Amino acid sequence: MSSSFHQKSLDLLSEQLGSKGIHINSLISKIATFQIAVPSWALGAGGTRFGRFSIGGEPRNLEEKLEDIGLLAKLTKRTDAVSLHIPWDIPQDVQAIRQKAADLQISFDAMNSNTFQDYGQPLSYKMGSLSNADPAIRKQAVEHNLQVIEIGKSLGSKGLTVWLADGSNFPGQAHIRKALQWTTESLKEIYASLPADWKLLLEYKPYEPNFYHTVIPDWGTSALICRQLGDRAKVLVDLGHHLPNTNIEQIVATLMHQNLLAGFHFNDSKYGDDDLSTGSVKPYQLFLIFCELIGGAEENAQTWESISWMIDASHNTKDPLEDLIQALEAISQAYAKALLVDRKKLALCQNEGDVVGAQEVLQDAFLTDVRTLVCEARIQSGGEADPLAFYRKEKIRAKLIAQRGKGAQASGL
Amino acid sequence: MSSSFHQKSLDLLSEQLGSKGIHINSLISKIATFQIAVPSWALGAGGTRFGRFSIGGEPRNLEEKLEDIGLLAKLTKRTDAVSLHIPWDIPQDVQAIRQKAADLQISFDAMNSNTFQDYGQPLSYKMGSLSNADPAIRKQAVEHNLQVIEIGKSLGSKGLTVWLADGSNFPGQAHIRKALQWTTESLKEIYASLPADWKLLLEYKPYEPNFYHTVIPDWGTSALICRQLGDRAKVLVDLGHHLPNTNIEQIVATLMHQNLLAGFHFNDSKYGDDDLSTGSVKPYQLFLIFCELIGGAEENAQTWESISWMIDASHNTKDPLEDLIQALEAISQAYAKALLVDRKKLALCQNEGDVVGAQEVLQDAFLTDVRTLVCEARIQSGGEADPLAFYRKEKIRAKLIAQRGKGAQASGL
Amino acid sequence: MSSSFHQKSLDLLSEQLGSKGIHINSLISKIATFQIAVPSWALGAGGTRFGRFSIGGEPRNLEEKLEDIGLLAKLTKRTDAVSLHIPWDIPQDVQAIRQKAADLQISFDAMNSNTFQDYGQPLSYKMGSLSNADPAIRKQAVEHNLQVIEIGKSLGSKGLTVWLADGSNFPGQAHIRKALQWTTESLKEIYASLPADWKLLLEYKPYEPNFYHTVIPDWGTSALICRQLGDRAKVLVDLGHHLPNTNIEQIVATLMHQNLLAGFHFNDSKYGDDDLSTGSVKPYQLFLIFCELIGGAEENAQTWESISWMIDASHNTKDPLEDLIQALEAISQAYAKALLVDRKKLALCQNEGDVVGAQEVLQDAFLTDVRTLVCEARIQSGGEADPLAFYRKEKIRAKLIAQRGKGAQASGL
Amino acid sequence: MSSSFHQKSLDLLSEQLGSKGIHINSLISKIATFQIAVPSWALGAGGTRFGRFSIGGEPRNLEEKLEDIGLLAKLTKRTDAVSLHIPWDIPQDVQAIRQKAADLQISFDAMNSNTFQDYGQPLSYKMGSLSNADPAIRKQAVEHNLQVIEIGKSLGSKGLTVWLADGSNFPGQAHIRKALQWTTESLKEIYASLPADWKLLLEYKPYEPNFYHTVIPDWGTSALICRQLGDRAKVLVDLGHHLPNTNIEQIVATLMHQNLLAGFHFNDSKYGDDDLSTGSVKPYQLFLIFCELIGGAEENAQTWESISWMIDASHNTKDPLEDLIQALEAISQAYAKALLVDRKKLALCQNEGDVVGAQEVLQDAFLTDVRTLVCEARIQSGGEADPLAFYRKEKIRAKLIAQRGKGAQASGL
Repeated sequence: MSSSFHQKSLDLLSEQLGSKGIHINSLISKIATFQIAVPSWALGAGGTRFGRFSIGGEPRNLEEKLEDIGLLAKLTKRTDAVSLHIPWDIPQDVQAIRQKAADLQISFDAMNSNTFQDYGQPLSYKMGSLSNADPAIRKQAVEHNLQVIEIGKSLGSKGLTVWLADGSNFPGQAHIRKALQWTTESLKEIYASLPADWKLLLEYKPYEPNFYHTVIPDWGTSALICRQLGDRAKVLVDLGHHLPNTNIEQIVATLMHQNLLAGFHFNDSKYGDDDLSTGSVKPYQLFLIFCELIGGAEENAQTWESISWMIDASHNTKDPLEDLIQALEAISQAYAKALLVDRKKLALCQNEGDVVGAQEVLQDAFLTDVRTLVCEARIQSGGEADPLAFYRKEKIRAKLIAQRGKGAQASGL
Repeated sequence: MSSSFHQKSLDLLSEQLGSKGIHINSLISKIATFQIAVPSWALGAGGTRFGRFSIGGEPRNLEEKLEDIGLLAKLTKRTDAVSLHIPWDIPQDVQAIRQKAADLQISFDAMNSNTFQDYGQPLSYKMGSLSNADPAIRKQAVEHNLQVIEIGKSLGSKGLTVWLADGSNFPGQAHIRKALQWTTESLKEIYASLPADWKLLLEYKPYEPNFYHTVIPDWGTSALICRQLGDRAKVLVDLGHHLPNTNIEQIVATLMHQNLLAGFHFNDSKYGDDDLSTGSVKPYQLFLIFCELIGGAEENAQTWESISWMIDASHNTKDPLEDLIQALEAISQAYAKALLVDRKKLALCQNEGDVVGAQEVLQDAFLTDVRTLVCEARIQSGGEADPLAFYRKEKIRAKLIAQRGKGAQASGL
Repeated sequence: MSSSFHQKSLDLLSEQLGSKGIHINSLISKIATFQIAVPSWALGAGGTRFGRFSIGGEPRNLEEKLEDIGLLAKLTKRTDAVSLHIPWDIPQDVQAIRQKAADLQISFDAMNSNTFQDYGQPLSYKMGSLSNADPAIRKQAVEHNLQVIEIGKSLGSKGLTVWLADGSNFPGQAHIRKALQWTTESLKEIYASLPADWKLLLEYKPYEPNFYHTVIPDWGTSALICRQLGDRAKVLVDLGHHLPNTNIEQIVATLMHQNLLAGFHFNDSKYGDDDLSTGSVKPYQLFLIFCELIGGAEENAQTWESISWMIDASHNTKDPLEDLIQALEAISQAYAKALLVDRKKLALCQNEGDVVGAQEVLQDAFLTDVRTLVCEARIQSGGEADPLAFYRKEKIRAKLIAQRGKGAQASGL
Repeated sequence: MSSSFHQKSLDLLSEQLGSKGIHINSLISKIATFQIAVPSWALGAGGTRFGRFSIGGEPRNLEEKLEDIGLLAKLTKRTDAVSLHIPWDIPQDVQAIRQKAADLQISFDAMNSNTFQDYGQPLSYKMGSLSNADPAIRKQAVEHNLQVIEIGKSLGSKGLTVWLADGSNFPGQAHIRKALQWTTESLKEIYASLPADWKLLLEYKPYEPNFYHTVIPDWGTSALICRQLGDRAKVLVDLGHHLPNTNIEQIVATLMHQNLLAGFHFNDSKYGDDDLSTGSVKPYQLFLIFCELIGGAEENAQTWESISWMIDASHNTKDPLEDLIQALEAISQAYAKALLVDRKKLALCQNEGDVVGAQEVLQDAFLTDVRTLVCEARIQSGGEADPLAFYRKEKIRAKLIAQRGKGAQASGL
């Protein structure tokens, strides 16, 4: 896209939106300031239980993970933080890591604990962690979370994300109520050690890796527990963690209505927790989610600033860095389009029962081509006009392979 | 089945269970006292949006509905109450109806309001009732519910069941948070008029008749509202009101854990709210639900007596009375089997992580043929050994057609 | 949108697409010639089993249905045919109807038979029609279809659409293999009477109104039967007739691969056969379907001309005419966007395993705002620039109510 | 269970069934001869993408896998064959393996090829195998299958099972029609080398490990390909390979109707391809599948002997040998119950539209406690009365761990 075409597009969009009373500079500014964290485990190839195909040049340690995110930040200007996973990302030299991150202008988003695998700890999580019938295992899992908080404090993080795989594969295996009770009690212990300026982000997921019951299967259970923990515990929405046909945007609205939305793990899915690139399968759903977010924030259900934004996808067949560039772009587009919604007109249609009109209002925003806006915001922030083209032109993956090796493999799933 | 074979089966079962420390008479007594209400609208043929096929001899008025339930009660001894639906069942002469019910030994279970149809009321529910953007419509819907309570009081009912079809068909049509808020406020008004010895049973349903969003789509939303209403508001579980693959027994356990389970609408489904006869498609699921119910009651999560039991199915291709006989039998069997679970052994397996053993305990109960037990309980209560065979032998449908007419059609869907 | 803004948008789009070697006039011409049939039953309010809310001014007879479609044709220029349903639309005076249609420039698309309801015919379809265990009922259902063909011949139709509700609600009710065999034999009899220049469009649907098994539940069963009938029998895809998470665009591609795609019933759905307006819930899916259609036609899997296009939605909360305007627009947009796909570049990405690049190619087309194109095509054809705005400005519904009455109700579901 | 109680139960069952004209000895004989193959990869702990928990004492090589299956055969008498997976089970010394298997009275069921992983072969399967756009990769994948046939021939196997993971993760990634065409052509090459007394078992699966499209997603696509290959190619049904709510028993009936059913991979699932123990979640579905199988065989749709039976589950939390004992028992029970169905009475109900009666017939069979029958069949065959109890009493897992080591890990997923 030539820069003169870009300018013409921008001018036309400015005229189009201006006629509706929307100032393009205000939009660009909002898009420019919107930042989404990237998880440390998303920088290597993902896999399924049937195998994993390497990509080459993956970051071999925490330093190289930061470098990859630094690159993403430089190109896209849509990310400025990393979300670490313990034990995969235990820093050997905290000060050096902090300095490295500062140099790359990257901060530390929510920390992630891991009690769904055995990685040498004394007691096995095979039968669960925070919900385990054995108090010694629950204790171990609690202490692991406390350790994660400590590491996070040393790095300047302000949040702990808890995703529990706990559950059962067969009817009868677990005592459902006790497992819920034990989980709540374990989380209370963790919450008691949460620094005053931290928040606890509690995920839910209906199934996988357990296939009969999961201790925290839905937003209701997560909200129930958060209410027992305290104000700083909120519900994290991972877009792939729902049963078929779930109306996710309604869940987002319901959580904001209660001031209970912690934030997002962005990805996309067609079947289950597919962990595909956000926006690649259901872009309209992503737009509708942002419509609820903007509405909830504007109408003071919950503040925009209180919400955390993170990508969480698995890059099984794409170069992870390219995938993340696409995801950041898709999220920016959804956000930009949702900003275009004529909310006054929408409210009028809703009050009058004008169903056709309400649909027109939303689709008018969704159908608008906002790529020029998102691009302009990136350019104004000092990023690349077309990050993906730049990444390919500069042959960055080839350089990473040359530097780190073909067989370099990042820690993760 | 001959009576001598029945006795031999009973003796063998008694020996089998006795060796596990279970006394057969205690089981029979529990089964005998378990009663499930029948809704007044289940006595006629149901239909789908594509049409309805008449059965003939359907009850033409409330009196005849009571007679049908009286017959069911006499044959099966598993039902002793009717659940009425307003405006379909407004009694013309309350005293006469009370007397008729008393004569038939039938009491009045929870009352059902209807704000999902237009039946001549001044304002339309096309765009919702308790959640409507128009306060006048919300007021009308609240007042309808208050009227239902009044009718229920006059009949001796002790509960109000609220099922809301409110929602939207298209993104943008409804203001999701406001609709939830208005619904909560409307329900607060209704709850304020609820007699002290009544309970409010609040249903949830993910979709149909609205196909984008439903105001109360899941147990979490229903529970959230109930918590704001008060202790007498609880969540009603209709087995067909869930997204694909939902673990319903876990929802039951979670609700009992919070003392929030109002009761059940029993039916079965393969796809959606199919309203098939309970136990006809997923008998193991029904058994697992009763396992959670018995466990929750025995361990004092919530009392057995606080739970309401009702059938809610649509009889599209079966004779409704035969269908109800099958449903009452299936529920009795599931309950009886769940009573056989060796809960001490199960707890041991759960504590030891013996997944195989836990499955064996549940399946040992489920695989036991309890028909003899259920039959014996019915005989001891004065019912028919084989109600369905009796119904057919006596040609009761033919008699009803002769009496009421081939074209007689009950009010309902 | 002012006409000068329209022209500027068109110029900019022309420049944008021209740089990719796409000539805008060729696009406009393709969009302008694309026509979608409207079913006669879509002109009144739809309903669910829980009720129906009237819209007022609905067409009271076939003549008025034609007038409504004539209006749609005039405004949108995207429809030029009606699909009739027998017995709802039996013409009293064939010549008068033909003349009326000709005057309105409307032709007669595929005819629809109805063996899913009882409407006074001698034998009931309660237990099925073409699959019924009773040969007399199968015969009656076959003869009904032959009658529909006769009516269609008299009107100039060239197709018969068969949707069967046949199936069962409970395990054991139907003999699955025999029902399939009987259905195949019945369809062979119908096919034997199909005029040489007609085609038979055979639908599939997994459930509703039967909730255990449906005789033709999936494309595989429909294709299996079509193969036994002959070349003129093909598979009709109704977008709402699939299990959760089905990849519909793959089914379209697979059917074209076998030259077995009859055509479409366009609608949208979130849960089941929701019959919502096409493009209102999953616009990206609709786009992907058109990508497969264009690819299949360009690569000679099956000709574009051999495919039938029809809307089939239920207008429960919208004015049917407004809903149809929205649906015609959404289909046009999806088609226009799919025409923009750079298929050479896509093929290159596919061959090289460039997953990221392939996604970029599709999204580049989808993200383009094609409303200007679709509008221009309509203007050049003599339609309204903004049909919905025109419809509202002219207060057409109010006029129809004044003319036909508030309580006028169209035949249908 | 004491042997006297066993005898009394058997006598009572004999009396019960005898009164319906069913001879118990004939039943026992049928149950006793029914054999289900066990896959070599099911003898170690399974895992998910989130990790794997070891069980200890897993077989370290093919010989030990045979020994494990020999043990299962000895205890249960329900399995007499192993299904090998190449490259995981390439025999080093074919004669020795044949001798070992013969000594253990185990034969070699269908062979399984693997083109879903990279295990050192020259070209990667990351972008597909038999469907790959690169002809060299397709050739490599075809040749791998030919090698698997060769190995199978040397061992006396008579079948090749092909499960393809081929597909795509994102819209646009794959050319859907070409991928189908290439797959068909690749399979034609394989089929051309299939020995005359072998069969090709072609699996289908809707998703995982690809999450947008799978080349062979449903029975229809598999059947379409098989028809192009020849009579010895048939469709393999893995119970977990279906979209939510699929009626699997109908698929079984439809395949038998076309003489296209290759056989089964038995497992159970609640959400997706959960690979849980057969019968642990949906025992009624398993029973209904066997009802269709027996009906199809008795009515000569397809012979019983032409169908292959195999377990395919993942043992994530159970001891694999215990899990297999449970699965073999569950399959035997489902088969035994289905044998009890009064098919004449069922046919009568189906012909008369007696929906209630048909359900009664099926449920009468399902509710019967057949454990005594299955046990008696096992005893008469020389197996253990209670294989699971025996396995535990003899502390077999502990012995295997002592012999093979705590960390011994079987090849597989």
